[in-house]
Amino acid sequence: MPDPVNVAAVGLGRWARILAKQYTQLDNVNLVTCFTRTEATREAFAEDFGCDADESLEDVLARDDVEGLIITVPNDYHADVIEQAADAGVNCFVEKPISIDIEDAKRIQDAVERNDVVFSVGHSCRRVGGIRKTKEMIESGEIGEVSHVEAEWANERGLELTADNWRSDPAKAPGGPLVQLGVHQIDNLQYLLGPVKQVFTYGKPIYTEIENFTMSQTVLEFESGQQAYLGANWTSPGVFFINTYATEGVLFYDLDFANWSNSEDTDENSTLVLREFEEWTEDKDERKLRDLDVEVPDTNHLRDEVEEFANAIRDPDVEPEVGAEDAMRNVAVVLAAQRSANENRPVDVQEIIDEG
Amino acid sequence: MPDPVNVAAVGLGRWARILAKQYTQLDNVNLVTCFTRTEATREAFAEDFGCDADESLEDVLARDDVEGLIITVPNDYHADVIEQAADAGVNCFVEKPISIDIEDAKRIQDAVERNDVVFSVGHSCRRVGGIRKTKEMIESGEIGEVSHVEAEWANERGLELTADNWRSDPAKAPGGPLVQLGVHQIDNLQYLLGPVKQVFTYGKPIYTEIENFTMSQTVLEFESGQQAYLGANWTSPGVFFINTYATEGVLFYDLDFANWSNSEDTDENSTLVLREFEEWTEDKDERKLRDLDVEVPDTNHLRDEVEEFANAIRDPDVEPEVGAEDAMRNVAVVLAAQRSANENRPVDVQEIIDEG
Repeated sequence: MPDPVNVAAVGLGRWARILAKQYTQLDNVNLVTCFTRTEATREAFAEDFGCDADESLEDVLARDDVEGLIITVPNDYHADVIEQAADAGVNCFVEKPISIDIEDAKRIQDAVERNDVVFSVGHSCRRVGGIRKTKEMIESGEIGEVSHVEAEWANERGLELTADNWRSDPAKAPGGPLVQLGVHQIDNLQYLLGPVKQVFTYGKPIYTEIENFTMSQTVLEFESGQQAYLGANWTSPGVFFINTYATEGVLFYDLDFANWSNSEDTDENSTLVLREFEEWTEDKDERKLRDLDVEVPDTNHLRDEVEEFANAIRDPDVEPEVGAEDAMRNVAVVLAAQRSANENRPVDVQEIIDEG
Repeated sequence: MPDPVNVAAVGLGRWARILAKQYTQLDNVNLVTCFTRTEATREAFAEDFGCDADESLEDVLARDDVEGLIITVPNDYHADVIEQAADAGVNCFVEKPISIDIEDAKRIQDAVERNDVVFSVGHSCRRVGGIRKTKEMIESGEIGEVSHVEAEWANERGLELTADNWRSDPAKAPGGPLVQLGVHQIDNLQYLLGPVKQVFTYGKPIYTEIENFTMSQTVLEFESGQQAYLGANWTSPGVFFINTYATEGVLFYDLDFANWSNSEDTDENSTLVLREFEEWTEDKDERKLRDLDVEVPDTNHLRDEVEEFANAIRDPDVEPEVGAEDAMRNVAVVLAAQRSANENRPVDVQEIIDEG
């Protein structure tokens, strides 16, 4: 077995800790240091996770023992950090979304390509057991042909948002829940159905005093001709589902959001159900449906994504599943949806990409 | 107790039998005769349901004992039959949709108003226990404020459609599943959230050889500022749900489509679940959700709608819940959705109504 990959945590907020709790249990990852601007925060993180603390990003990148960064800084700093790291030859894992505009995504893509470093974006959601299994059942043809998909990710967090939070700023969090929650489902949808061509969105602030959207509903047309619906909302208790409609079956994937961050428990707190005909009868009124529980592969979405990142650093044949190109397309869909809602018209994803 | 209301069944296809099975069990309804053009069909219906058979609509309307019609003729004949009946002073119950264009809906509205007859449209779906209870829980405020709703009605019937079926003709069945299934959900959505202002739809034929839509996904903006999604599809095994998102709870209503026509069993084959916080904690990651089964009132949607029609004939204080105005607005939303998909733009419902 090759040596574990030495990584540094950059950005040490709530999500950095949730991720570190997972990847510090991996055999192929070794957390050596961390950095954030606030000294007390980095000291606490270093103590809790048993690693060094550096005083600047430059110090982290100057170390001989750092091979990769686990980046959870604010979205609008991703490009700066990744560019600096890539130029220093350091590999980067960054939490989704890759960026909040196409310019930054293209800067990142350019930096990682010209420096030939490993780059991976934390679209962990497609890695959960139920979505892996949904993809497998679509590809095997066992549920027939997929016509449309419905995805929702809702939680209550817009109800508590105050104007001083960065999530309340449409420039820093485009579309509000669209970029924070929706981008996961957009990745799932493009994973399942391929590239999105056009979207139309209704979105607005509701039951909040902030100016950013807290509610959004989007319909999506794919290049394949298939369609989807995406609800991304901060206005209610948590809901996460993906319904996949095919000619011979419908798959209902439900995940208990309360177990999203405890990624070792996400699968066991989710369900994948297949609806199909018990028996096909000529008489339409005699057809009975049945719902069957589907067994899904056991995963740990937050651990697996970092494990793959480390594998890709050691093994040139391993390529991270979600790189700059796919991640940029996910953000482009978010931005197309935001523009659609603001301008009350359908928006082509290519229009957004071309402008970046 | 007043005398039962004498009714005649006009149009004797599959749905006429499903309805008759229900209303012939009512104390306040008495089926006296029936009519359809094909003699063998009306003789068989008359024998099965123990009533007379008349040779023409004129003969039915000329009878002294017919007070109301139960009309299930094709949608594009509704206006002709209702106009003739209303002009003869006969009350009318008509299966949804009221019509397939606004001109016919306005003709019907005019005919029933100028003759002051009772008129009711068979939007039975809002009468099921789970939707009644959803409405009650919205109005009581117990789940907080509703932001958005998601509704889907899917079945497999587009996969079997041939070009010679009237449902395959976009002029006779606008939007395909939009007018046949979606109109029920549109009525439910307007029942729950008030009038729809604007819609945007992706819709097309898929996995079929017919030219009419078999797939449609619509987002709807309401005059209230609330929003909804509607999926109406003929491309998969049956799915019916309404998800209602509110600030303190989410209601999931699911109905087993296989029990739609057996309206005495519809409620017991459906579920209403409330998702809410088990306990509210400051720490976002500690909040746990729970799902509770909600008890719903016992209903029989197909029987109840005809019972109300008969009550309204006997008692001037009873007004049918869904009259010409609401039913026309339901059709207008269907037509707006169809136009939106065809023209790839959001369409105001008022635009459709104004043209009619």
